Amino acid sequence: MTTASGGKASAGNFFEDFALGQEIRHATPRSLTAGDAALYIGLTGSRFPLPCSVVAARAAGYSDSPLDDLLVFHTVFGKTVADISLNAVANLGYAEGRFLAPAHAGDTLSASSTVIGLRETSNSKAGVVWVRTTGRNQRGEAVLEYVRWVMVRKRDEASAAPPAVIPDLTPVVASDSLVPPAGFDARGYDRTASGSDHLWDDYAPGERIDHGEGATIEEAEHMLATRLYQNNAKPHFDLHAAQATRFGRRLVYGGHVISLARALSFNGLANAFAIGAINAGTHANPVFAGDTIYAWSEVMERIELPGHAGLGALRLRTVALKDRPAAEFTHRDAEGKHDAAVVLDLDYTVFMPRR
Amino acid sequence: MTTASGGKASAGNFFEDFALGQEIRHATPRSLTAGDAALYIGLTGSRFPLPCSVVAARAAGYSDSPLDDLLVFHTVFGKTVADISLNAVANLGYAEGRFLAPAHAGDTLSASSTVIGLRETSNSKAGVVWVRTTGRNQRGEAVLEYVRWVMVRKRDEASAAPPAVIPDLTPVVASDSLVPPAGFDARGYDRTASGSDHLWDDYAPGERIDHGEGATIEEAEHMLATRLYQNNAKPHFDLHAAQATRFGRRLVYGGHVISLARALSFNGLANAFAIGAINAGTHANPVFAGDTIYAWSEVMERIELPGHAGLGALRLRTVALKDRPAAEFTHRDAEGKHDAAVVLDLDYTVFMPRR
Amino acid sequence: MTTASGGKASAGNFFEDFALGQEIRHATPRSLTAGDAALYIGLTGSRFPLPCSVVAARAAGYSDSPLDDLLVFHTVFGKTVADISLNAVANLGYAEGRFLAPAHAGDTLSASSTVIGLRETSNSKAGVVWVRTTGRNQRGEAVLEYVRWVMVRKRDEASAAPPAVIPDLTPVVASDSLVPPAGFDARGYDRTASGSDHLWDDYAPGERIDHGEGATIEEAEHMLATRLYQNNAKPHFDLHAAQATRFGRRLVYGGHVISLARALSFNGLANAFAIGAINAGTHANPVFAGDTIYAWSEVMERIELPGHAGLGALRLRTVALKDRPAAEFTHRDAEGKHDAAVVLDLDYTVFMPRR
Repeated sequence: MTTASGGKASAGNFFEDFALGQEIRHATPRSLTAGDAALYIGLTGSRFPLPCSVVAARAAGYSDSPLDDLLVFHTVFGKTVADISLNAVANLGYAEGRFLAPAHAGDTLSASSTVIGLRETSNSKAGVVWVRTTGRNQRGEAVLEYVRWVMVRKRDEASAAPPAVIPDLTPVVASDSLVPPAGFDARGYDRTASGSDHLWDDYAPGERIDHGEGATIEEAEHMLATRLYQNNAKPHFDLHAAQATRFGRRLVYGGHVISLARALSFNGLANAFAIGAINAGTHANPVFAGDTIYAWSEVMERIELPGHAGLGALRLRTVALKDRPAAEFTHRDAEGKHDAAVVLDLDYTVFMPRR
Repeated sequence: MTTASGGKASAGNFFEDFALGQEIRHATPRSLTAGDAALYIGLTGSRFPLPCSVVAARAAGYSDSPLDDLLVFHTVFGKTVADISLNAVANLGYAEGRFLAPAHAGDTLSASSTVIGLRETSNSKAGVVWVRTTGRNQRGEAVLEYVRWVMVRKRDEASAAPPAVIPDLTPVVASDSLVPPAGFDARGYDRTASGSDHLWDDYAPGERIDHGEGATIEEAEHMLATRLYQNNAKPHFDLHAAQATRFGRRLVYGGHVISLARALSFNGLANAFAIGAINAGTHANPVFAGDTIYAWSEVMERIELPGHAGLGALRLRTVALKDRPAAEFTHRDAEGKHDAAVVLDLDYTVFMPRR
Repeated sequence: MTTASGGKASAGNFFEDFALGQEIRHATPRSLTAGDAALYIGLTGSRFPLPCSVVAARAAGYSDSPLDDLLVFHTVFGKTVADISLNAVANLGYAEGRFLAPAHAGDTLSASSTVIGLRETSNSKAGVVWVRTTGRNQRGEAVLEYVRWVMVRKRDEASAAPPAVIPDLTPVVASDSLVPPAGFDARGYDRTASGSDHLWDDYAPGERIDHGEGATIEEAEHMLATRLYQNNAKPHFDLHAAQATRFGRRLVYGGHVISLARALSFNGLANAFAIGAINAGTHANPVFAGDTIYAWSEVMERIELPGHAGLGALRLRTVALKDRPAAEFTHRDAEGKHDAAVVLDLDYTVFMPRR
């Protein structure tokens, strides 16, 4: 006679499983390689020069081509899913995201998270969990950290609520907390490589840029991307189960939409060679295969970086839309609610050479 | 005037073309790289730590991250298709599969096969061909061997049948024929990397594990995978021709289903870090794009490995289902026939650290 | 108050933006890696031995596996799109394409083009632009050059036409302009690696070869390929915009069809280990996802290469068809018009070992 054992396979953590201050080391560490970098380009079409060209990267002071910042972000994020958000009802937000050091092909990234906030929902069915996640390379150096919060189902609705603790989060990463890539040398930055002469000085707060092109998403593409990041969140992969949900189909990982928006933003922000911070972000509406993503950006702030010759930062809002070209800069309605076409509203900070 | 020449292009071998004892060296040798490893992760989402992390692999005694065992298997298998199974009616089985040495990025694999059995079918339209295939690296070391048998069409139904020779195959690879990865050091095996504390000692024969997650297959995914392995079997790629078949559409390569089942099995078998043997396997029903694959495993045997400190082996049955979650461990009906939801019934042996 | 700025994002060049003799350095330089090579195999299934096996490549005198010639071609071509053909109405032709040196994983390719011809169309809505494009590696060595011409929309139909200049192009790259791979050593070329004994001497002008297999294209596949090459031509990616066009759907990049035809041609031309020249090429009909590509080739000329022991060249016509097996060698009708099933008519020259 055989026995069924649910104990070996994990069903993920529920709200009750999290404790304030708890630290979680996530499986599986991941050596990123030139293979991941190539597939990332195939999936996004990104054309920012430094991750594409070792020649351009070295000329700008890097030891080697950096991996795309968002490939690093998704890899670190993906590791957290099995522990943090397998039973998520909703991804609610990001804050205090900072890129702390470039990663290169051959680096092995691992991720750990600390629970910094907990609050049960009023209906007692779920709770919001805030975690601060850090991605580290094989030398233990932090390459990325960010806070995210997510609503997680309770295992048992009757279980007692923990004391509510809502972390105090900075709305925008302060300019003196930004960490420009070590060794960046603006003198060697090659504008022929990006094809654009527009530098930091040329962007004005309030300026809006329609990135023009559109990118239609296929099921195979978003699943390949999300699997590459070893993100195993079920809604992206399981059509059979999805058919019983309110959407009736698979959801595209929000991070893939971030990557597409960033790749599209090359047309208008070609010299925004690296991301410094993710200040805030909302996946305003779901994205499905067949949707065509467009993007526009607004310059929110032009940030001086004292002590970093030739380098500035721009705080940007990049908005991704589905099936709506960006020429009209669709965003929120009169009540402040995101338009139904808005799928991403991302507040982040990029580095750009200055004159 | 021009002349058509069918002679340059091969239509593959027919049953009459095989002779007992015949040895076939297959084209095209293949240098596997970090690119193949990345794409394999993108296609399967596999999270077993050693192929993912050079840090975890070295700590466990490997010189470098091993390539996923199934990437090696599919690469070797893929080379045999043009010679062995281009005119196959059905893939009938596997036996005596053994992984003999890890392969690493940079290794060049080539494959050769020996015909070890032949038997014409009773209707004289086809015959079963048994081959023993060996995959070797650039140093000539065997990395993999296995037997498979396949029913192949005859070119001419009137041609004479060869004497029937059915090889005597071992139903299960014997424990003393298993070849644990040379240099494996259980002391350095990092359970934080796998995220699971369940080791060899914790698994009991008869225990069943529902691997929980589901993976829907897209046409682009299975074709990418199968092309990556340079497997050119027509039913996977040619919709135009498939429309005239009884299925009316492309068939998913059974090996892709094996890979998905193995990747899903991480949830419950996270420390089964390498495959030692493929004892037997059946692709019980066809898989098509749009199908969602689930998997469950049963522990069939817990195998001691004398002389290999800290290491044990588990003989497993992993069953993959389509569009049927694995919680009920669907398998065979009362007459022993596979349920229509069963697409794979794989009997194999994995290595796992012990306490 | 915010202001919209179209100035940062490029809408691409229009016919009026080109001037005879103008030289354009294209963004983004690209370091190709083993990752790109793996993805190229996954997307095309190509089995020519030298890009697949470092062992076979070194035995044949290469320092390392060469990148597939067409991966190099598409990468260079892709860079030109943002500057040359973002506003193209039609891609009209190729000429004088020559592969000048092998590229290897790790090489960084960049592209530049010179405008060598201009002619406004009779209806004043567009004009034909001829460019000669050169791809160079990180040492500045030319690896590829070719001419292409494309019909580009005018920004303003009323603008004055430039003097018409139509370049004088060679219909076929002369045999003494072909550049066989430096160091190629026919004595080390391994026919077991290709699986074919057919060498240069065995092919006769006028001979036709049906390459047999078919390859169905998925949206995700052609977009992955085209994004890998960082080709951002809109018709391949934007379903939302495509729905308003006469086709109502996305167009497959013609280069992906060239790659599929070349990969299919392995069955019949397995020892055509490298491409020497692209003499001419026409994308005769559009290709869409769901189409199944077949291919046949005709040997047009057998070319001696004095001074290159053991090496010859074949001038080939390879014709790709959609949803029509190649056994009937479908090509042109009685008036010389391409059959509706013909999607590619490529005149090119390959290198092949001789006896």
